[in-house]
Amino acid sequence: MKQKRFFLREDEIPSQWYNIQADMPVKPQPMLNPATRQAVKEEDLYPVFARELCRQELDTEHRWFDIPDEVREQYTYYRPTPLVRAYGLEKELDTPAHIYFKNESVSPVGSHKLNSALAQAYYCKKEGVKNVTTETGAGQWGTALSYAARLFGLEAAVYQVRISYEQKPYRRSMMQVFGAQVTPSPSMSTRAGKDILTRTPHHQGSLGTAISEAVELARMTPDCKYTLGSVMSHVALHQTVIGLEAEKQMEMAGEYPDVVIACFGGGSNFGGISFPFMRHVFSGERKTRFVAAEPVACPKLTRGKFGYDFGDEAGYTPLMPMFTLGHDFTPANIHAGGLRYHGAGVIVSQLLKDGYMEAVDIGQHDSFAAGCMFARCEGIIPAPESCHAIAATVAEALKCRESGESKVLLFNLSGHGLVDMSAYDQYIAGNL
Amino acid sequence: MKQKRFFLREDEIPSQWYNIQADMPVKPQPMLNPATRQAVKEEDLYPVFARELCRQELDTEHRWFDIPDEVREQYTYYRPTPLVRAYGLEKELDTPAHIYFKNESVSPVGSHKLNSALAQAYYCKKEGVKNVTTETGAGQWGTALSYAARLFGLEAAVYQVRISYEQKPYRRSMMQVFGAQVTPSPSMSTRAGKDILTRTPHHQGSLGTAISEAVELARMTPDCKYTLGSVMSHVALHQTVIGLEAEKQMEMAGEYPDVVIACFGGGSNFGGISFPFMRHVFSGERKTRFVAAEPVACPKLTRGKFGYDFGDEAGYTPLMPMFTLGHDFTPANIHAGGLRYHGAGVIVSQLLKDGYMEAVDIGQHDSFAAGCMFARCEGIIPAPESCHAIAATVAEALKCRESGESKVLLFNLSGHGLVDMSAYDQYIAGNL
Repeated sequence: MKQKRFFLREDEIPSQWYNIQADMPVKPQPMLNPATRQAVKEEDLYPVFARELCRQELDTEHRWFDIPDEVREQYTYYRPTPLVRAYGLEKELDTPAHIYFKNESVSPVGSHKLNSALAQAYYCKKEGVKNVTTETGAGQWGTALSYAARLFGLEAAVYQVRISYEQKPYRRSMMQVFGAQVTPSPSMSTRAGKDILTRTPHHQGSLGTAISEAVELARMTPDCKYTLGSVMSHVALHQTVIGLEAEKQMEMAGEYPDVVIACFGGGSNFGGISFPFMRHVFSGERKTRFVAAEPVACPKLTRGKFGYDFGDEAGYTPLMPMFTLGHDFTPANIHAGGLRYHGAGVIVSQLLKDGYMEAVDIGQHDSFAAGCMFARCEGIIPAPESCHAIAATVAEALKCRESGESKVLLFNLSGHGLVDMSAYDQYIAGNL
Repeated sequence: MKQKRFFLREDEIPSQWYNIQADMPVKPQPMLNPATRQAVKEEDLYPVFARELCRQELDTEHRWFDIPDEVREQYTYYRPTPLVRAYGLEKELDTPAHIYFKNESVSPVGSHKLNSALAQAYYCKKEGVKNVTTETGAGQWGTALSYAARLFGLEAAVYQVRISYEQKPYRRSMMQVFGAQVTPSPSMSTRAGKDILTRTPHHQGSLGTAISEAVELARMTPDCKYTLGSVMSHVALHQTVIGLEAEKQMEMAGEYPDVVIACFGGGSNFGGISFPFMRHVFSGERKTRFVAAEPVACPKLTRGKFGYDFGDEAGYTPLMPMFTLGHDFTPANIHAGGLRYHGAGVIVSQLLKDGYMEAVDIGQHDSFAAGCMFARCEGIIPAPESCHAIAATVAEALKCRESGESKVLLFNLSGHGLVDMSAYDQYIAGNL
């Protein structure tokens, strides 16, 4: 029997997160205070984020951060996640490529987002915070944060992008089952929301607007901190458990990836699986390629510009050096709500600029075609976001068929699509 | 760190299914041919089921059946499933009981149903069948069969109970993603369906009616066999992988269950986790209690009568000796569609009659209250069916709180509820 799934033991869950900033040949440029144009310091972020997260955000020296026991204990509920050899997909594609995927969909909330939600909720709790707030697009981050908040005894208020709130009511239900308050954004409950709705009465929302609302709530509410599901460097840091586990599991499989692929929203999923492998490229040991798959509808990496921009619609965040489509960009209503963000995190932006990674854009129809093929071969219905990674992997595998090369491809299955079946419905009905 | 999850290695997946019929102190009474009142023989079932399944169905001698390599290979995609100590739930209930659950929700299709779907599809394929047909209530069995059929290169036609088809459109989408044809039942495509619709024009469907339609299709179509998701003894046989794994895992945890609990539709989920433990009761080694949790709306075990009845609405099946509410019973539209079946399988019916198991009935509201509590404590949103097992477990745990006993409770989390969020929505809104 060929081994398809590679498991680590519970005690092999990484005990540290990997901080790629310590190893980057060119460090990211600093975030800037928009008023003073001075580099943002740790303390400047305190009003918004838990202090330990601010420290992690700006640290470019320490290669490893210990994972607190309380977080690691929660990881044991679903980690280590399996690494799977996708024999079914290989056969369907008739490719000599070896396709592996890291299955983050097995997390209780159905996506990789929980890896960082647990860490962020823990640090908030530890410093005495009572409430956390955040934004969510597709709802995966909001679900993860709602559950993590519940575990650590915090109240959670989630601003969900209005179009997702309407397209994906069941993500809202999940957040409510976990006890969170969910508000469609833009809302009238914040100044940022009111301003947007005044300018554009039927605004469908975007991650940028929801971030503005959540940041405003955190600033205005005592004992309340903001949390973010991607973009920030500390989020990608927490997600490196994915790549660190995958590294050990690829070793169990006796292979090493030639190409690492992930879908791309703000960069934490991509960073999570890529950064641990990328350190061996920095050191010259390996020549791995890294491919970020973004939607055609929100092409910040393939068609955005590198420069300073805000992380949110209202301009509450520091200015960040990133590939961006502009902070007031509102992408089309694609189903991959988690990829509808105008900018890329500062680390990945620098890495793209320096040629350590590549980006491809995937059309929505192609993404679902690849997702359905994967579901039929491997049994797991992927999240619309993850479909982009699958489509990019399929493209690489087909190139291998042309060239006859047995490349080893590894992608991150960031989540399942069981709460996104309405999107599949539309695909099947030919309406995408 | 306390160990919460107990894992077996891939090579510890059982290599055989356990046939409880070989060990039962009183064997089930025979199924009868309704025309002749003669005991049904293996050959009588050939027009409907694959032959190997007919053999398994009636075998009361062989204790163990080898799991074919092809099926076991597919099991490795998701088995062994984890056994989990529910520390969060114990804490919430402030109970001295030790609560464990076997997590079958990690299967690619989200429930235990795949354990038998793979076996049935394999045996059909092996004997040259091209098409399989079946009924589905909530859609979990239909999803599993659709996926299994796809894996073994068979076409699948699924009759879905109309009320579930309407209440749970996303299960239909899942089946379609896997390439199955899905028809709401009763339909005009069969004589049985036409008869029912003539009598009751807006019939909402039941498992009994859907079974009639699928059996009729199988009988009328060359190269087509019927498959069933529960009730039959061979289905429970395949599900014993659950209990066999759980037995080893409880040993890893250093405990043995005092009470084994499962929700009850036709009995395969209940049998799957119970039967391997029950053999030690037959042998006198253990005194384990076994509790089946059924819905108040469909109380065949707690309020049905033991006697010969048909397995389907139209009377196409043999007469079966079982606890039944009558084969034309149409239960209320509860969300736990998988539990809306009028009768219990012949094995479990005999076991209940002989006092080897107990049954409790759970109201819909109570089931969701327990399910939400579980979700908040353990992070997994349970299927509406599984909520019944949780409610029964909670009741046992609260009895332990009263008595101060540290009993060991084990329940089967048969599936997750991520495709049933509309039901949770209604619960949260106070509409249940």
